[in-house]
Amino acid sequence: MKTIKKSIITNKRTELLDITNIIQKEINDSKFNNGIVVIFTPHTTAGITINENADPDVKIDIDYKINKLIPKNDPNYLHSEGNSDSHLKSSIFSPSISLIFEDNKLILGVWQAIYFCEFDGPRHRKYYIKIISD
Amino acid sequence: MKTIKKSIITNKRTELLDITNIIQKEINDSKFNNGIVVIFTPHTTAGITINENADPDVKIDIDYKINKLIPKNDPNYLHSEGNSDSHLKSSIFSPSISLIFEDNKLILGVWQAIYFCEFDGPRHRKYYIKIISD
Amino acid sequence: MKTIKKSIITNKRTELLDITNIIQKEINDSKFNNGIVVIFTPHTTAGITINENADPDVKIDIDYKINKLIPKNDPNYLHSEGNSDSHLKSSIFSPSISLIFEDNKLILGVWQAIYFCEFDGPRHRKYYIKIISD
Repeated sequence: MKTIKKSIITNKRTELLDITNIIQKEINDSKFNNGIVVIFTPHTTAGITINENADPDVKIDIDYKINKLIPKNDPNYLHSEGNSDSHLKSSIFSPSISLIFEDNKLILGVWQAIYFCEFDGPRHRKYYIKIISD
Repeated sequence: MKTIKKSIITNKRTELLDITNIIQKEINDSKFNNGIVVIFTPHTTAGITINENADPDVKIDIDYKINKLIPKNDPNYLHSEGNSDSHLKSSIFSPSISLIFEDNKLILGVWQAIYFCEFDGPRHRKYYIKIISD
Repeated sequence: MKTIKKSIITNKRTELLDITNIIQKEINDSKFNNGIVVIFTPHTTAGITINENADPDVKIDIDYKINKLIPKNDPNYLHSEGNSDSHLKSSIFSPSISLIFEDNKLILGVWQAIYFCEFDGPRHRKYYIKIISD
């Protein structure tokens, strides 16, 4: 099965955007029962993560604290684009995650969502979905 | 092969619990020679990582330092459950890891163990093991 | 297909070394069209990540900032080898990453490279490449 390419528009410099339904829809359409799915973003200032889907304050607190730990500005940064913090956040959150599906359904906790992580927006972004059936 | 579901009981608010033997046992039982295994926890305040299995002080130092960087309390957190730090730690360590096995044996360094990471315990927790043969 | 084992020599205590061409070469040689590749390092003080390949200052800034957040020395570390910081960095960056390839070519952004992350060098290091065809 071909790799699926998706577009997403982000709205802030840093934010988490829920892409769970999009991933589940592609698994539905694949008709595969069991396997794994790799989600990957081709950007060096973005990431893919899993976190809570219920209280929106969790996303805000994650965003607040990672920006407090790794603020945008540091007088010692050399990179002229002013987004060195975004690059480090991308490596820390990772641009890739592997998930499991069973009976054509993602295995996720009841409070879990899959998030596209924007660390240097707002921008037009891409991510890829690769579904492997076993 | 069906996804395997495991339970684990944690004992502290934050700790690393060695699950290497449990993963290897499932690979043994699968009878698969070669492939990959995805380990995934369905909790938003836990993770899966790899680190040293020899000196127990390494686990203590990891736990100490991540809690120093991201302490439980911050007056700016909005989330009312008081575990925003745990959510961020989950995204930083990741709830998912992909490993390789060859000749029915996990490829791990001699000092490596697979750890279930508790960031908001003690609790009864779950994780999933998906073995893909090539 | 057998897991591929690679050696790499690192030159500093902490640095990022570009291994993209080595991974792509193994995918070429596999002749597989489509699938995923898991890259894994068996060391507890190293990691695998993806980040920018263009401006070398990005690597320097990532290295600078992660060392500022998690310096080598902390009077509260117990582990006697003096590399507790390296162990934590390994868990934060992860020793494993899963990537996608299509038409025998890695899916990577135009600015992305795959990096071996040294957190306690200089040393002789290893990493493994597992290619799964779908």
